[in-house]
Amino acid sequence: MAYKDLTKKELMELKASLEAQFEDKKALGLKLDMSRGKPSTAQLSVSQPILDVLNSKTHMVASDGMDCRNYGGLTGIPEAKKLMADMMGTTPEHIIIGGNASLTLMFDTVSRAYTHGLLGETPWCKLDQVKFLCPVPGYDRHFSITEHFGIEMINIPMTENGPDMDMVEELVSGDASIKGIWCVPKYSNPQGICYSDETVRRFAALTPAARDFRIYWDNAYAIHHLYEDKQIEILDIISECEKAGHPDMVFEFASTSKVSFSGSGVAAIAASKANLDDMEKHLTIQTIGYDKVNQLRHVLFFKDMAGLNAHMMKHADEMRPKFETVLEILDRELSNLDIASWRKPLGGYFISFEAMEGCAKAIVAKCREAGVILTGAGATYPYKKDPKDSNIRLAPSFPTIDELTEAAELFVLCVKLVSVEKLLEAK
Amino acid sequence: MAYKDLTKKELMELKASLEAQFEDKKALGLKLDMSRGKPSTAQLSVSQPILDVLNSKTHMVASDGMDCRNYGGLTGIPEAKKLMADMMGTTPEHIIIGGNASLTLMFDTVSRAYTHGLLGETPWCKLDQVKFLCPVPGYDRHFSITEHFGIEMINIPMTENGPDMDMVEELVSGDASIKGIWCVPKYSNPQGICYSDETVRRFAALTPAARDFRIYWDNAYAIHHLYEDKQIEILDIISECEKAGHPDMVFEFASTSKVSFSGSGVAAIAASKANLDDMEKHLTIQTIGYDKVNQLRHVLFFKDMAGLNAHMMKHADEMRPKFETVLEILDRELSNLDIASWRKPLGGYFISFEAMEGCAKAIVAKCREAGVILTGAGATYPYKKDPKDSNIRLAPSFPTIDELTEAAELFVLCVKLVSVEKLLEAK
Repeated sequence: MAYKDLTKKELMELKASLEAQFEDKKALGLKLDMSRGKPSTAQLSVSQPILDVLNSKTHMVASDGMDCRNYGGLTGIPEAKKLMADMMGTTPEHIIIGGNASLTLMFDTVSRAYTHGLLGETPWCKLDQVKFLCPVPGYDRHFSITEHFGIEMINIPMTENGPDMDMVEELVSGDASIKGIWCVPKYSNPQGICYSDETVRRFAALTPAARDFRIYWDNAYAIHHLYEDKQIEILDIISECEKAGHPDMVFEFASTSKVSFSGSGVAAIAASKANLDDMEKHLTIQTIGYDKVNQLRHVLFFKDMAGLNAHMMKHADEMRPKFETVLEILDRELSNLDIASWRKPLGGYFISFEAMEGCAKAIVAKCREAGVILTGAGATYPYKKDPKDSNIRLAPSFPTIDELTEAAELFVLCVKLVSVEKLLEAK
Repeated sequence: MAYKDLTKKELMELKASLEAQFEDKKALGLKLDMSRGKPSTAQLSVSQPILDVLNSKTHMVASDGMDCRNYGGLTGIPEAKKLMADMMGTTPEHIIIGGNASLTLMFDTVSRAYTHGLLGETPWCKLDQVKFLCPVPGYDRHFSITEHFGIEMINIPMTENGPDMDMVEELVSGDASIKGIWCVPKYSNPQGICYSDETVRRFAALTPAARDFRIYWDNAYAIHHLYEDKQIEILDIISECEKAGHPDMVFEFASTSKVSFSGSGVAAIAASKANLDDMEKHLTIQTIGYDKVNQLRHVLFFKDMAGLNAHMMKHADEMRPKFETVLEILDRELSNLDIASWRKPLGGYFISFEAMEGCAKAIVAKCREAGVILTGAGATYPYKKDPKDSNIRLAPSFPTIDELTEAAELFVLCVKLVSVEKLLEAK
């Protein structure tokens, strides 16, 4: 029965019962963390044989004749470009290989726009106002980068098919201070939404007022499917932008951080030739080149897309039961109460949970009180301000199934308790 | 006999003879490169066993319990901090471990000062004028970074003991727009000069007008000795600055780029706690952490300073004969002609050569004409402008001894020819 249909007396009784259950849980002294999208130890072990592919006998020369151990090869070895291009659904000539983290490539791209400007446009540090559009809920580390550079962030609601494109189109075409939009187009963080073909095409067809407007397309979960038989594919934004006559309008990012090792993967950026040439001029100053030995290691281990996909199914075998454990508990405990909604993703690293308005912070605090750490409420919004205080990001990847069961049972209890308290306030 | 004492007729005859020799050399169709400080293939092979230390059975957990394969550990694993601190002559609490290149740490440090300011000072992008002192000749990539950010560079002459400290002290204390100085304190690039104790202490005692003035202390060749029995040690700038009451005045940089693999080493920055805390706030935004697997690989391979030193002596065994080959040819061919001088370094990667004024560009061009690529004349000066057009950086590390012999023989011939032409101009 929906909580909102309960009488005040019934809610009071329910509250007392839930509080008693909460005290029992609290007494268990749990210490669990569902806050970050970290791979589990088991997942990391899946990749451990990558450490065997290079040894003291390996011929360390790339296909272009470059000794991977020496200086040179600023934009990456050809075979790494091929592998990352395949993963991102584009072609090697659009790729520059980076270091161990796509986040750094994103930061550096924004920093470069701030200090030097993109393709000859005014550096953002010389402008009075720079704005970014931020589909919400979204990825906290994207918002941290733009906040760091004093960029004003505007929330864009997400729909089933991606960001609200009517709003994006109107804002982008009407305001030259809007210089970018953060996107996670596939298995979005945290909702697991995949952008529809129409959404991708509408992105490619944008007619921005700012010449240096770019789509920051973080294809973080390009191959991070949870199911072998339910894999979503999205359109390639690079070629769609080319077809629409806007080849320079997008920077795409990806990495193997959640494919091989989280701190020791290979990152890549995909963009038009003009954008890559512009970037390379700066890279020549910034670095003597990224780690080509690690690039070679990845290429020899994964070989090709088939190798990547087979590897990711091993990850999926670890991840799927965890997602299903949490989702079953949410379904069982909260389905008919009309106090929350959640999504069932087919890939990515998160479950996005919508509590009643004004309840998210209290639920996260309540969980913490009993020893379960969730992502901070508000973290999925710019400036950590969720206007409805309702979104909570659940990250099931790191704990074991037993730990997740404990954590999710506590979570649903806290959701019920905080919701009842909220409903009583209104009575 | 000194060329300057030759008559015009003698010079004309000499010129004809040298030109004939040059044409013979040119006919050989050489293709040699002495332009960059790249390790040779033999040197890289010395480090190849580093690829054996990690494998699918290795326990990948650092001494602080961190799984090196996962996210976390933003500032580096403790054992890597220890190793790099030992290498740099400082202590682990002064260290943040970076990615594969100290150049990137330097770029990022300057970029951070430009966009956000250091320890609360005004970001340089908001100032009308920012200047750096540049001891010359120096490292071209340092000058590229400051030029990239529009920073005005002021030449500081080098002496036998380091930069001209009278000039440094006067400028730094009198001009608040001077925000930094680039230093390579040990086996300097390109001269191989090691800063004396007095120089280091005078650096530590500087009283800059700008609160955000920093010494950018690139200890690139900290352990890159050429001789086992002639190793220079310099004072630790970090503790000297502490003793002088200026703990925040220095950023020190180093890496294993020329210890393990050039593109796949481990870099580090050393600084005061206040500077490191300031940096860490930005790093949290910029990266998910650097490559801890590679940090672990380096620690397990080198173990400690004794391991590093033993390894560097293997490099020295490769490098020493190359330096001696070039130096012998310079000595034999140019010693008594009074047209050039050069230094005999005890470490580092370069031989610095001073031609007669106005001759460096012509010598480099002449070498190129016959197939030997040298570092561009002027590259050792800010804006690539050597005011005397006399300094040439020779980089003997990469070619084989046979190739070096060929290259050096051609080089001395070109030096003679260009010098004779210069002397004839004045007759």
